Amino acid sequence: MRFLHTADWHIGKKLHGYDLLADQKDSIEKIIHLAQTEAVDAIVIAGDLYDRSVPSVEAVEMLNQKLIEINLEKALPILAISGNHDSSGRLATGTPWFKQTNFHLHTQLKEAFVPIEMADTQFFLLPYFEPIAARLYFEDETLTTIQAAMKRVIAEMVSLFDETKKQVLVTHFFIAGGLRTDSETPIEVGGLNSVPADLLDVFDYVALGHLHSKNALKKGKARYSGSPLKFSLSEINDEKGVWIIDTEQMQPVFHPLTPLREMEKLEASFEKLRQPTFYQTLNRETFWQIVLTDRAVIPNMMNQLREVYPYILSVERLNGREASQPQQERPREQNPQQVVSTFFEEITGETLTEKQFAWLSEGLQSALDTEKRD
Amino acid sequence: MRFLHTADWHIGKKLHGYDLLADQKDSIEKIIHLAQTEAVDAIVIAGDLYDRSVPSVEAVEMLNQKLIEINLEKALPILAISGNHDSSGRLATGTPWFKQTNFHLHTQLKEAFVPIEMADTQFFLLPYFEPIAARLYFEDETLTTIQAAMKRVIAEMVSLFDETKKQVLVTHFFIAGGLRTDSETPIEVGGLNSVPADLLDVFDYVALGHLHSKNALKKGKARYSGSPLKFSLSEINDEKGVWIIDTEQMQPVFHPLTPLREMEKLEASFEKLRQPTFYQTLNRETFWQIVLTDRAVIPNMMNQLREVYPYILSVERLNGREASQPQQERPREQNPQQVVSTFFEEITGETLTEKQFAWLSEGLQSALDTEKRD
Repeated sequence: MRFLHTADWHIGKKLHGYDLLADQKDSIEKIIHLAQTEAVDAIVIAGDLYDRSVPSVEAVEMLNQKLIEINLEKALPILAISGNHDSSGRLATGTPWFKQTNFHLHTQLKEAFVPIEMADTQFFLLPYFEPIAARLYFEDETLTTIQAAMKRVIAEMVSLFDETKKQVLVTHFFIAGGLRTDSETPIEVGGLNSVPADLLDVFDYVALGHLHSKNALKKGKARYSGSPLKFSLSEINDEKGVWIIDTEQMQPVFHPLTPLREMEKLEASFEKLRQPTFYQTLNRETFWQIVLTDRAVIPNMMNQLREVYPYILSVERLNGREASQPQQERPREQNPQQVVSTFFEEITGETLTEKQFAWLSEGLQSALDTEKRD
Repeated sequence: MRFLHTADWHIGKKLHGYDLLADQKDSIEKIIHLAQTEAVDAIVIAGDLYDRSVPSVEAVEMLNQKLIEINLEKALPILAISGNHDSSGRLATGTPWFKQTNFHLHTQLKEAFVPIEMADTQFFLLPYFEPIAARLYFEDETLTTIQAAMKRVIAEMVSLFDETKKQVLVTHFFIAGGLRTDSETPIEVGGLNSVPADLLDVFDYVALGHLHSKNALKKGKARYSGSPLKFSLSEINDEKGVWIIDTEQMQPVFHPLTPLREMEKLEASFEKLRQPTFYQTLNRETFWQIVLTDRAVIPNMMNQLREVYPYILSVERLNGREASQPQQERPREQNPQQVVSTFFEEITGETLTEKQFAWLSEGLQSALDTEKRD
């Protein structure tokens, strides 16, 4: 059989404040199209379907529609798990009914021990879980770390292996040695909560979710699919897409996906960036990382650039900016308010008003609260 | 065939701050038991399954579990709609899969025109909707009121009537003439948005949701089931339960439900209320409306009463309270902060600190915001 391995859809995620729902819808449509042209027998989604435990109603409606399309309209089996960004309790809604049409969405640890058999392969769908879930499931108080829990979980799976079949693990964790980007929410503390890669050697393939780069881990048979879209500037040069695996060879083949809106770097002078002869050659719908070659102070720079480029992610100076006052050594550790204030001053040449500063503090606090809640 | 008619479960609702989830779980279990002993062929739930558009994860998990029990474990068909408290977009999750086992949950106007046929009856499941949905569906800009929209909706349904069958409408609206309690969220403004009762005469039975008393409307074949639990002190003397309807006679028979914790009135002196010989005869798990016969000021009264009665909904004075200072005519219109401050002073004999007052204002604002959002 053949299956497609994707993960980290993060439906509802925003990129520097820009709504990505249209881009995400487009990338799911491209995955469906690829699944059909490549005639795969199942789509594996290794966690983080949503970006947050309570996604917006628009995010819910979009994903619902696409899952209906895949599983009910195209009759394609789905093998999926919840990730650390999903609320396992909310995502579980409807799952006992989904099974009837081979849409297996596992959100609880215990479900990992009911392998899904398809053709020559047993799929073990292990959702993201905390060690406490393993302590309760195995009634074993010694399972205090994710390493210990995972060792026990995998031993349990091995006892269920059918020797006449291949075994594929679908899971969502930080595997030791994995390379991080800026868009994942860490689920490990000081490396303590990473899963040792050699634990995974018993499987013929491990379809991973959590890290957003497809190259995050190349060890044995374990692969991160990476996210289908670039979720941070640190991923600007990443190639995004999905793996397709034929269970006979178990050799993953990468299929790149073209995004609705690209993320690109644009290096030029301010004057050139504003010239129609220059920008008319570009796809202005792109998410831009702009690098200005000028050093001069440019009043109202952001607004002038946004008139031409609606989706600017960042503006940097290639050669720094003319100092309007003696440049001081910047302290390494500033609080977020100071960082933003300084940035605002450098970009606009104005200082934040008291009201703007209050809004800033409020916004930062709310962002911190959200991050904690997730 | 026989069906059970219930509505307004409002899973996740709190009663004067007390969590009702255990009571709600218990009442659903009693409904399931009744459905089985009465051998009904389907359970009709006429909207407001949840209390809010984003219910807590505990509420979601409890309702999910009970729906699995009803539909998958007991193989009982469910005919349900979304109400004004539900988020139709969120509640729609999984619905195309639910149909496979006769769990029909309609959340969109267009679904009302696909009658569900069971034995001798056509069920039209019409979710709560706004006139804009009818304008879009019928492409008719004149449908600006719920009356006009409902007239058109029902005409459309009549065109789908199979003359060899009976017709049952399941819906969630304020029907003109209905009697309100304190626990419903009004969806009508000045009566403008109520649905004229005679529009419903074309049906053999109309299973209504929205009003919380089973006696809210007795007109023709339309009935509110009422909520399965008392959700406000104004419902203290209501009888709660469900209707069971045999489609041959279409005569609804009411079946009362015993709640996990009752709501009762307790009239006595403070001294008596604190006497073990008195309170040991009572079920202290009851939600109490306490009426004190004393007139004296009682310091720390609420805390002393709560030591004995953990679930107090309100404390009133039968004969008023001794004035500690000259009683003044109280203005009819006070703002909510003033009302609570005065209440706090009367009950505790203390005045709110500045911090407590700030908390109060914050809490009231958040409650108002929540209400608006719902």
